[in-house]
Amino acid sequence: MMTGRSLIEMVHLGVEAAAVLAFAMSGLLEAARKRLDAVGVFVVAGLTAFGGGTLRDILLDRRPFFWVEHHVWLWVLLALCAAAMLFLRARHIAPTERAMLWPDAIGLGLFAGAGTQLGLAAGMPALVAVLLGVVTATFGGVLRDVVCNEIPGLFRDRRPYAVCAFAGGWIMVGAQALGAAGWLSMLLGAGTATALRMLSLWLDLSLPSWQDAGES
Amino acid sequence: MMTGRSLIEMVHLGVEAAAVLAFAMSGLLEAARKRLDAVGVFVVAGLTAFGGGTLRDILLDRRPFFWVEHHVWLWVLLALCAAAMLFLRARHIAPTERAMLWPDAIGLGLFAGAGTQLGLAAGMPALVAVLLGVVTATFGGVLRDVVCNEIPGLFRDRRPYAVCAFAGGWIMVGAQALGAAGWLSMLLGAGTATALRMLSLWLDLSLPSWQDAGES
Amino acid sequence: MMTGRSLIEMVHLGVEAAAVLAFAMSGLLEAARKRLDAVGVFVVAGLTAFGGGTLRDILLDRRPFFWVEHHVWLWVLLALCAAAMLFLRARHIAPTERAMLWPDAIGLGLFAGAGTQLGLAAGMPALVAVLLGVVTATFGGVLRDVVCNEIPGLFRDRRPYAVCAFAGGWIMVGAQALGAAGWLSMLLGAGTATALRMLSLWLDLSLPSWQDAGES
Repeated sequence: MMTGRSLIEMVHLGVEAAAVLAFAMSGLLEAARKRLDAVGVFVVAGLTAFGGGTLRDILLDRRPFFWVEHHVWLWVLLALCAAAMLFLRARHIAPTERAMLWPDAIGLGLFAGAGTQLGLAAGMPALVAVLLGVVTATFGGVLRDVVCNEIPGLFRDRRPYAVCAFAGGWIMVGAQALGAAGWLSMLLGAGTATALRMLSLWLDLSLPSWQDAGES
Repeated sequence: MMTGRSLIEMVHLGVEAAAVLAFAMSGLLEAARKRLDAVGVFVVAGLTAFGGGTLRDILLDRRPFFWVEHHVWLWVLLALCAAAMLFLRARHIAPTERAMLWPDAIGLGLFAGAGTQLGLAAGMPALVAVLLGVVTATFGGVLRDVVCNEIPGLFRDRRPYAVCAFAGGWIMVGAQALGAAGWLSMLLGAGTATALRMLSLWLDLSLPSWQDAGES
Repeated sequence: MMTGRSLIEMVHLGVEAAAVLAFAMSGLLEAARKRLDAVGVFVVAGLTAFGGGTLRDILLDRRPFFWVEHHVWLWVLLALCAAAMLFLRARHIAPTERAMLWPDAIGLGLFAGAGTQLGLAAGMPALVAVLLGVVTATFGGVLRDVVCNEIPGLFRDRRPYAVCAFAGGWIMVGAQALGAAGWLSMLLGAGTATALRMLSLWLDLSLPSWQDAGES
């Protein structure tokens, strides 16, 4: 019979797996669009999935990295890339991206929450901790776009993505300041970021833009 | 009544503020030219202002970063970006860049001097310390150009910019080797870099170029 | 009279020098093609030669870097760049690249072997150690391409380059698991990577590609 604890752990593991896979898939699809070779697919998928957390850990001078401690994920990534190169066709890309919206939004929340919590635990000021959460959640995608030779979508598509992670981080800081338990503040922070992300997609919200400061 | 010490500290703080703001403005103007959104403006401005020093600290394995220790600067940066998106127009870009030439040259000197001094203090060989000064002073701009999907201007515009930081660093190493006090060698090194930079702008100097090694 | 030990050391030093120079030359030629200025030539050549090892050391939190411990290489690099800007012509680029194929393949093997060995010595799991070897051998070139504003050739040219380093790393892990001495497993691993690289060039092998997943 399954105990309550192991059920929670399995849910947690399942949610985490969905989030990491959603991030990896986003790198994989970009690699497919750019027609990268097998090496490029693996590196770009891995960079998208683990790049944000790795950058956060370098900034916090924290070891081991997630993908060192749980290196089974590297094998999963290798298998995923091999499967994608065998079975993924151009007509699959758009439906796959739509199917990834929920896991990606959950990943945004989880990664932002985890980054903020690690920042606070390392004694960082609140704003720095929140920004480390944003870095965790978004810089995998930034690195993906930089190595694929594009201006990162995060910096110019006017979608509220980093902003959702930023808001979730502050909710978490607030909850901790009010004395909430770690799991509760994590749930509130990650839930806020995920909910805001889905809401902004549903309502098609966009960030304010420049009036006429651009070149043309 | 203000004491001598607090006056020096205020001058130092003012000079430093001018330098950080000049670097941030350079990122902000580039973000405006590329019409990045609010997230892109903040990240690119922050990367330009703090990227060089952060990379130096990662190389030296040194913590806390400047923007963690003085996180008020992150709030200043947020306010600056919000103000820019509200009030900056295309016709302001060129005059703002001209107005930033002096603060930028001072930032070049200060950042090069600080980087070289930290390198020497960490026991680095002279050439490495000088190069760390150059990295501090110039790699914010390099990272700005890389994320904006351009070949870094530093690498191809033939302007003596890194070279001024390099020369200032060696002056500083020489002054310390001759037994000068820390503040004096800093003043000489930073002053040399800043003066060379303004001189090279005034005389329109350029670096030697390839004869015919390029592709076309 | 030269002893056996100093002879081995001289061979080792000569092989290492050839490898570092081959990597630096690859950056230098790319800089020449892009017509970078003197600063760009030095940075891109240095990034190509030392970038992979430096990234590995940052990931392993290991200091001092190779180019700090042996900073004479930075002087060699400065001299090499100055010589290239004086004497390199467009007609020299293709023959120089051909002349560099052997030293580059040796560098691939040596860097992959050294990275894997350092990873194993730091207690990394086998897959992580092998990937650190691949990073050491290939990410100098990736950084070169990123700062030169290209999608890294490693990710899309379908040449078996990273794959050779990957195979060599596993040979090394296997040899160590079987109890081989450090120098023997290094020789086997680096030799495998170098031999596979030369074989793949000779037979014009290429990696499997996407069926039709790209955009056009």
